[in-house]
Amino acid sequence: MMDLAQRVAEAADLVTVALDELLPRADGPENRLTEAMRYAALGPGKRLRTWFALETGRMFDLDDRPVLRAACALECIHAYSLIHDDLPCMDDDDMRRGRPTVHIAYDEMTAVLAGDALQAAAFEIVAHHDTHPDGGVRAELAYRLALACGARGMVGGQLIDMLGVREDLGGVARMQRLKTGALIACAFELPLVMAHAQEAERHALMMFAHDLGLAYQIVDDLLDAEGDAAVLGKAAGKDADQGKTTFVTLLGAEAARERLSLLRSQTKTHLDPFGSRAEILRASVDFVLDRRH
Amino acid sequence: MMDLAQRVAEAADLVTVALDELLPRADGPENRLTEAMRYAALGPGKRLRTWFALETGRMFDLDDRPVLRAACALECIHAYSLIHDDLPCMDDDDMRRGRPTVHIAYDEMTAVLAGDALQAAAFEIVAHHDTHPDGGVRAELAYRLALACGARGMVGGQLIDMLGVREDLGGVARMQRLKTGALIACAFELPLVMAHAQEAERHALMMFAHDLGLAYQIVDDLLDAEGDAAVLGKAAGKDADQGKTTFVTLLGAEAARERLSLLRSQTKTHLDPFGSRAEILRASVDFVLDRRH
Repeated sequence: MMDLAQRVAEAADLVTVALDELLPRADGPENRLTEAMRYAALGPGKRLRTWFALETGRMFDLDDRPVLRAACALECIHAYSLIHDDLPCMDDDDMRRGRPTVHIAYDEMTAVLAGDALQAAAFEIVAHHDTHPDGGVRAELAYRLALACGARGMVGGQLIDMLGVREDLGGVARMQRLKTGALIACAFELPLVMAHAQEAERHALMMFAHDLGLAYQIVDDLLDAEGDAAVLGKAAGKDADQGKTTFVTLLGAEAARERLSLLRSQTKTHLDPFGSRAEILRASVDFVLDRRH
Repeated sequence: MMDLAQRVAEAADLVTVALDELLPRADGPENRLTEAMRYAALGPGKRLRTWFALETGRMFDLDDRPVLRAACALECIHAYSLIHDDLPCMDDDDMRRGRPTVHIAYDEMTAVLAGDALQAAAFEIVAHHDTHPDGGVRAELAYRLALACGARGMVGGQLIDMLGVREDLGGVARMQRLKTGALIACAFELPLVMAHAQEAERHALMMFAHDLGLAYQIVDDLLDAEGDAAVLGKAAGKDADQGKTTFVTLLGAEAARERLSLLRSQTKTHLDPFGSRAEILRASVDFVLDRRH
């Protein structure tokens, strides 16, 4: 039917080329900044947000090109969040995807600023005329993106994660929904905005996105608890070592796997209204949840 | 004719009330984040960007209300930049405007995240439907703001400042134009976008904004070299102590004052095409350059 691994790889190539064109370059001393931005945003990555956005756009018969610009903005936000999460005052990580993190490869000051500039770049990209001919759509893209990555989204979730204040499943689920779920949902939401999708379609895909994001996090926690550092490209068992509360520390691995299994089928049912149009998104569920790193 | 100090104070009150309404609140543990955002954005400040934006809007017969939303976005960006500039890995400042900086009042992690969330809040505000009925205008506001505060604007300038690589007047002027000039210019530019101003008007006001920003920086450098810490609300003489190259360290105070005087009259001439409509902006030049802190 389709080779999903190849589709993901193609999406990753497309977004890397597009980002390389869109990210600023500099002749002056600030090229240290633009190089650090490129180091973070053009480095290896699964680019799942890009793939989700492109497949959602294709489901609504959108051209890849404008969706790819929205995906570039999502990848800029994702890259900036990783740079800041890795800082000494946050997770204090030296390695990310098998490479030194930005504050190690450059320095802390450059890392803070490269993250800041990548966030601005995301809005510059979505708000630019080339992203969509309809200004109202561009403004809506910027608005949705800002909501997803602000205090009531990604950054709020990151603070909750850092504070380590979640004691129960509800708290962990809420943290996940904000910290990673909001931006994953945005990968589906931005193409929906571009396609002027109906409210019922929008609602169904948002439910899908939220369940997928949650399931993805459970896989992440399971991999952290049981994974292999060489395959992960980062230290395993870090959550438990840091005393973090995760789905696995709260439920145990077996119950977490059961929950994942239920969530997996529930996620797929949200796609029922789309019938065969959602064939690839339906297959993507198993594809992303069966990952080993 | 008009009491400028009162107009500035009124603008400051207006934007503080508006920001208080627009900035997020939280019930959950992330209220630490929203409180830090409020601490930074609602604290004392001259709010000159807001005042510039409002007076520019009035010159084009715009209602205050939408311009005030654009001003809120500018103040969010300004507040975020100060939080990050004050971090230990940047200027390492403990005090700002007579109060502990955010990483002192809270902690470093919260300071990084509060800055990040304030940047997102700025785009959430300008892109929101209430800012302007025309989506194309909202998208253009977001685009102009992103350009002004990204790698080719404020953040690029901050990196150049931190690297301390500027040896000559051209380098110092370029650093200033990026670090502070771009966002000051944006205070004039956003109302121009909202007013659908003609290209000639836009060009004249941008020249005005750039010269005013440069003159403002020379005043800043003079105040740092000669000012009184109690009046400034921060340590004086810091630039020289840190070996920073400024207009004053390069030119000496007397030549810097001469340059300021020339720039002051040049700044005003950019307003000639507007005639008496620009009466208040014309008066604002002396008002902001004659400040003592």
